[in-house]
Amino acid sequence: MDSNEGGAPTGSQDAMPVLSSPIMQRFSFENGHHAQRMAAVCPSVSSKGFMTNFATPVYIALLAVMLVLPSPAADWISKVHEFPLIKQMNGSSNDYFTNSRESMMCFPHPESPRLSSYASDHLQLCSGNGHYEIASHQERTTPDAGACHCYGCFSGKHCEHLNSDCDLNIFHGDPTLFEEYWLTQPDAPTIIPSWQGLSYFAHRHNSYLFVDSFLEQTIRQLHGMIGNAVTEGRFLVLGVGSTQLYQAALYALTSPDSPTPTSVVSAIPHYSSFEGVTRFLDSRRFKWIGDAEKFRDSGTSEPYIELVTSPNNPCGSMNKAVVNGNGSVINDLAYYWPHYTPITAPADYPIMLWTLSKITGHAGTRLGWAIVEDEKIATKMAFFVQMNTLGVSQDAQARGVTLLRSITSSYNTRPERQPFFHLSQAVLEDRWARMSQALQNSSRFVLPEFEPASCSFFGRAFQPNPPFMWLKCKVDEDCAQLLKDHKIISRGGRAFGVSTQYVRVSMLDRRPLFDLLLSRLAALH
Amino acid sequence: MDSNEGGAPTGSQDAMPVLSSPIMQRFSFENGHHAQRMAAVCPSVSSKGFMTNFATPVYIALLAVMLVLPSPAADWISKVHEFPLIKQMNGSSNDYFTNSRESMMCFPHPESPRLSSYASDHLQLCSGNGHYEIASHQERTTPDAGACHCYGCFSGKHCEHLNSDCDLNIFHGDPTLFEEYWLTQPDAPTIIPSWQGLSYFAHRHNSYLFVDSFLEQTIRQLHGMIGNAVTEGRFLVLGVGSTQLYQAALYALTSPDSPTPTSVVSAIPHYSSFEGVTRFLDSRRFKWIGDAEKFRDSGTSEPYIELVTSPNNPCGSMNKAVVNGNGSVINDLAYYWPHYTPITAPADYPIMLWTLSKITGHAGTRLGWAIVEDEKIATKMAFFVQMNTLGVSQDAQARGVTLLRSITSSYNTRPERQPFFHLSQAVLEDRWARMSQALQNSSRFVLPEFEPASCSFFGRAFQPNPPFMWLKCKVDEDCAQLLKDHKIISRGGRAFGVSTQYVRVSMLDRRPLFDLLLSRLAALH
Repeated sequence: MDSNEGGAPTGSQDAMPVLSSPIMQRFSFENGHHAQRMAAVCPSVSSKGFMTNFATPVYIALLAVMLVLPSPAADWISKVHEFPLIKQMNGSSNDYFTNSRESMMCFPHPESPRLSSYASDHLQLCSGNGHYEIASHQERTTPDAGACHCYGCFSGKHCEHLNSDCDLNIFHGDPTLFEEYWLTQPDAPTIIPSWQGLSYFAHRHNSYLFVDSFLEQTIRQLHGMIGNAVTEGRFLVLGVGSTQLYQAALYALTSPDSPTPTSVVSAIPHYSSFEGVTRFLDSRRFKWIGDAEKFRDSGTSEPYIELVTSPNNPCGSMNKAVVNGNGSVINDLAYYWPHYTPITAPADYPIMLWTLSKITGHAGTRLGWAIVEDEKIATKMAFFVQMNTLGVSQDAQARGVTLLRSITSSYNTRPERQPFFHLSQAVLEDRWARMSQALQNSSRFVLPEFEPASCSFFGRAFQPNPPFMWLKCKVDEDCAQLLKDHKIISRGGRAFGVSTQYVRVSMLDRRPLFDLLLSRLAALH
Repeated sequence: MDSNEGGAPTGSQDAMPVLSSPIMQRFSFENGHHAQRMAAVCPSVSSKGFMTNFATPVYIALLAVMLVLPSPAADWISKVHEFPLIKQMNGSSNDYFTNSRESMMCFPHPESPRLSSYASDHLQLCSGNGHYEIASHQERTTPDAGACHCYGCFSGKHCEHLNSDCDLNIFHGDPTLFEEYWLTQPDAPTIIPSWQGLSYFAHRHNSYLFVDSFLEQTIRQLHGMIGNAVTEGRFLVLGVGSTQLYQAALYALTSPDSPTPTSVVSAIPHYSSFEGVTRFLDSRRFKWIGDAEKFRDSGTSEPYIELVTSPNNPCGSMNKAVVNGNGSVINDLAYYWPHYTPITAPADYPIMLWTLSKITGHAGTRLGWAIVEDEKIATKMAFFVQMNTLGVSQDAQARGVTLLRSITSSYNTRPERQPFFHLSQAVLEDRWARMSQALQNSSRFVLPEFEPASCSFFGRAFQPNPPFMWLKCKVDEDCAQLLKDHKIISRGGRAFGVSTQYVRVSMLDRRPLFDLLLSRLAALH
């Protein structure tokens, strides 16, 4: 396997080549050593505020095109604006920052007739600041049903009180933002009869005994609809989240017979869990090295595995492999979906990791998949999953089918369905705009900036709205400690292989907690 | 941790001490070296046929007590006999061997009004030899709904044809036997609304963030009802099946700082996956050694971890640790449930592994748990699960709650519920009786034999009905190959650390496949 091949998308002729889009050119790491080092820390960070760039003539022109032309994108956007349920949210006490995008910030209103009775209870009885707690969904009539379980920072019978002294914990990237969307989809429950899924093996399985072929078909259809991955002729391996599949790939790409462990590298800032997950098995097959650029610059010819997360966690850039040697590349594409970033071409790499968590928000389901070019590698990965956990829960697979089909069918002609990616993109875009506006004149933080790119799925250009905002403190100080002093528990730069001057802030928390984050960061001026 | 402590149950005063029951005395490995070696190959194998022992005066006396006295056990058994739905199965063409127990061999009849329409379709349309296949349970109205997907060896539109030339694959211990029970429980579906379980973290979690506290409560209640484990003051760690928890325990009991890897041992015949699962990670922390008695006899004082599966897979005996040194013990208690074996006392070991798979049959759910004495060990195991798979699917946990509560509630006073363990024990007992009867005069095989013991849960004595029959060929030949020549794909002795003269035969397959196994083995006279 050659990392050059891995790094160079070879999408269909019709699709826009990745490198021709402005954003990909910016992140192509091909402008000399100094630029590469800057890029590794975070290619999208500059000393300019986000909003300056946001208002560039190019983006204004693209917005104008988007709003004027009768494109599918304009259709969807206008529908988002038209949602009467969303409009009712205007002027809510949770709107810390009002702007013209306000009407897009939330999923439908609690009084929507679309909501199930539970969802309605959830939003109305608990003020949108907590779960309406029941012992189990089948036991709503039991005496312990009907109490609110408030999110952190909220209290009271109806979660109506905000505890302003609380610690706001956004250490994890828990994608609970999407809960509000699913509360409006009462027709998407997963119903599993008691007699279903007893066997270790999927009833209708694909080439790997544990994988439901109907789920595989659903996943391939979704990638086809979005256009974000080449799947034809590729093998699909299922895992208990992409975390397990990352380990499966390390296993598949290494050998017990190798004289020394294979080096595992990733350009900084890299996903914070890579190091821990690589180390904890204490395997003789591989060893964590870290910074891929340092590894490249050392001139070693050792075998290696490079991890590339694109869009990057934490910094949102569209990364590519940097080592370009005779090693292997694992491409983590968890966030390469149109609510986070423009889809510029189908990703086409030898090993691509994906996860339900960051598409629909169902991290708790623990369902990930790998799209793998080489059958031998795929078979070894499936073997790892078999030995490690004897396959993936059939219930998680059933849930995956229901949820993924719900979002693909939200793009069919049924008018009662709301288009998932468009709605989610609008909500994320609104969050980014509000956060950027709030911090644009900050004396404390340097904000990331992104350039727009044309998205083949939306048929329009927009700026990425990554799941995390990667902040840099203007003063060289421990930025996570600064936030902690102001009651925001975030993840500091060290975990990502860079200095403490950086900090990662989640954009994916539930609405009232995001609003609280926004108000606390804004107060840090 | 001391394996002596691990091996000596310290149940409550009210419960019968483990060593006082005849079966436990038989398997106590305290009668000298020769007996121990015999025991290790399989303590329950003798040259006598099972039926000889089955008809011992002791057992007849116990049966008489059971049938005459108005004990709870007699109540249940009489109820089993009274099930009108079961009685309708008498004389079915699938009854290869008729005997007085025939009426207990199957779960309720396809025409039962208790069955859901799907279950009824399943049994009627596919002749009980296949699944009534639908694309998804929510899509019964789609054009591709309604075809039978036949089990191996069956074909035809209604799976009405038995292909007598087929290979019967019982290599795995897939617990599909229980499907028929669940088809009679239309009130036990798991319904998961789309907005539930998005977070990585359980909504109401126990001390470990990923574990649903309601599931923990359900598991503790079940163990309390059955009386098969000490849970008070112990910690509960959840895993993706007990396979993952076995790896988590190896991780928790070892250190990266140890100068040499810790030896992992298990008395032969041991569970066939232990070796592969221990080896595949290529960890520096531990190494597979194998036969625990050889390890003990080598007189080494190295640190070690001993694995004890009890009832044993493959041979059904109630094993205890054999090394008795200063090492750690992991007790795999997957089969210590009353449908398989008499519950003689609550198990009380430092690390006990359990799995939903072998209780309710839902192997596909991938839900296991460990009951752990030492909080530090439990925390390390939970850390392993976090690093390995970021927790356990919340959907699998929801399913676990529904299924386990369904079987506990089958013991409440609601007359429409059927008592799960009693029904299942009767079905397994019937299978053992039929298999033993068919092979009692076999010139080919030595059958295992078991002595009855008093079960505190059933309030009566019975013989174990293990999930596997561990056969020994009378002639020193490759017993699995012999079976393969007769179109039975089984698992040979080598995988369990013993000679090819032994073979493991699953007793847990679906009814028509078990019947086929029975007829093929019987034809091997």
